[in-house]
Amino acid sequence: MLLTVIYIIAITAEAMTGALSAGRRSMDWFGVMIIACVTALGGGSVRDVLLGHYPLTWVKHPEYLVLTCCAAFVTILIAKWMRQLRNVFLVLDALGLIGFTIIGCQIALEMGHGFVVSAVAGVLTGVSGGILRDILCNDVPLVFRRELYASIAFVSVIFYWLCSHYGLSQDLTILSTLIFGFSLRLIAIYFGLEMPKFIYKEDDGHSASSKDES
Amino acid sequence: MLLTVIYIIAITAEAMTGALSAGRRSMDWFGVMIIACVTALGGGSVRDVLLGHYPLTWVKHPEYLVLTCCAAFVTILIAKWMRQLRNVFLVLDALGLIGFTIIGCQIALEMGHGFVVSAVAGVLTGVSGGILRDILCNDVPLVFRRELYASIAFVSVIFYWLCSHYGLSQDLTILSTLIFGFSLRLIAIYFGLEMPKFIYKEDDGHSASSKDES
Amino acid sequence: MLLTVIYIIAITAEAMTGALSAGRRSMDWFGVMIIACVTALGGGSVRDVLLGHYPLTWVKHPEYLVLTCCAAFVTILIAKWMRQLRNVFLVLDALGLIGFTIIGCQIALEMGHGFVVSAVAGVLTGVSGGILRDILCNDVPLVFRRELYASIAFVSVIFYWLCSHYGLSQDLTILSTLIFGFSLRLIAIYFGLEMPKFIYKEDDGHSASSKDES
Repeated sequence: MLLTVIYIIAITAEAMTGALSAGRRSMDWFGVMIIACVTALGGGSVRDVLLGHYPLTWVKHPEYLVLTCCAAFVTILIAKWMRQLRNVFLVLDALGLIGFTIIGCQIALEMGHGFVVSAVAGVLTGVSGGILRDILCNDVPLVFRRELYASIAFVSVIFYWLCSHYGLSQDLTILSTLIFGFSLRLIAIYFGLEMPKFIYKEDDGHSASSKDES
Repeated sequence: MLLTVIYIIAITAEAMTGALSAGRRSMDWFGVMIIACVTALGGGSVRDVLLGHYPLTWVKHPEYLVLTCCAAFVTILIAKWMRQLRNVFLVLDALGLIGFTIIGCQIALEMGHGFVVSAVAGVLTGVSGGILRDILCNDVPLVFRRELYASIAFVSVIFYWLCSHYGLSQDLTILSTLIFGFSLRLIAIYFGLEMPKFIYKEDDGHSASSKDES
Repeated sequence: MLLTVIYIIAITAEAMTGALSAGRRSMDWFGVMIIACVTALGGGSVRDVLLGHYPLTWVKHPEYLVLTCCAAFVTILIAKWMRQLRNVFLVLDALGLIGFTIIGCQIALEMGHGFVVSAVAGVLTGVSGGILRDILCNDVPLVFRRELYASIAFVSVIFYWLCSHYGLSQDLTILSTLIFGFSLRLIAIYFGLEMPKFIYKEDDGHSASSKDES
């Protein structure tokens, strides 16, 4: 129940980030809706396809597709006032990231997978919607370069795993993971915390030519 | 039967658009064939993977793979005369778009899905081959910016749904949807009809930095 | 047994190429690991999803995920000395390409597919990890433009097929395909052999506008 509410907030927030990205690339209204759906529902779809967990969420509950399309449409209408809403937005997105992660992790555990696979499922659900959005908009995925993002999904999975391992009830586990991951993400945004970067320069022919043409 | 003929025309036309895109990026012959296969058969594969509809078309009928490779090879040979064939090409592509859409929609309906999922399946089958082509060639997918394209697939699904809901036989439904969608697409090309665009400008650090490096 | 050893060498080598690509785009450590996993395990995942061959390798053997993450981490540490190791690297990558191809081909054959599908499965397993890496790093996939690469995977499948058709034992077939494909790849690198390229220029509005904005 709690998870459903969080899920709905999460897909709405993600649909709006997708719509804004599409708007930056001047896509038409239909493209905006497709990008919004991919951003909101793509993470869960990637997880379900990789784990063979059929039917996919949006196939079972097509109403979520309708919801993301509505969210995209509302974003087109209120885009001008979006900048003022920036902080609300970041908060919703943070809630969405952790919500998606918990859901992904839980589904993998219910399927009987162990820690590593459920961690991957959680992180995948949390971040791959945004990655697909950036690929469709022809950007290098921000996820890999922004302040702590994917790594917070990973740490949240560890926290979830520990809580549930030490016998907390499922509701309590979900709630405390949510609060933990959410605070971590807000702290990361506020202080601009970043993972160390790996910078590798090489001047061979290949990478040079690929840069010229990209 | 009619659908099989349309399907074969469609994958041939799509394979040729894929080969031309690969040629614009100066890929080698093998790359041209891979891009052609992805463009022609990728839309159906995405749909089948998302709906869990196994085996995929080209796994069941590998002869379609051979056909797309041949189409790509022919494109390499006749590319010089391609510009004169431009209009033939657009017509075949329009036929392919609607054919793919009808097939995708029908498969979803046969699997027992409702309107929303079958609409998504139809549009996905129609447009995702082209989207994959543009991602592999590192372009922003044209589908989202060209004259009415994905939206025509969507309108065709609605038309198909209405026809079949009001009791038309399947053959008649397919035929009238084909004629309807095909004419719509030709009208859209001829008059350069476009969906309204959503243009969103924002000068924050993130989008600026992502532009610099992309 | 032999194949498992080759597989482990292959995913390690591919994880390292993925990590270096991520480093060229200045990604953070977590992004480096994700790119490494996608490069090393993405080819097999694409094959398994398309053929409906569940569970995926890394779901069944999560230890391979841990291995690729370790390989990525080691790459970050030793990146400075990587240029001197360039040749070792190319050799390992060649071994990986052929190993992946043989494994992909074998899995398709075990599932009862014929020549065309097993050839596609082999080539897909060999090259799609690298393609996903280049898409995530926003490059035009190198696979389609480098010296003979995907085509060597294809020729190796034909060789494998012939060996196994003329009654060689499985071990001997694997070994001779490995030696054949590996030598071919080394010859291609040494002499800079390339497939003929297909170059297509067109100055219509669409491609021009897509270039401006990409």
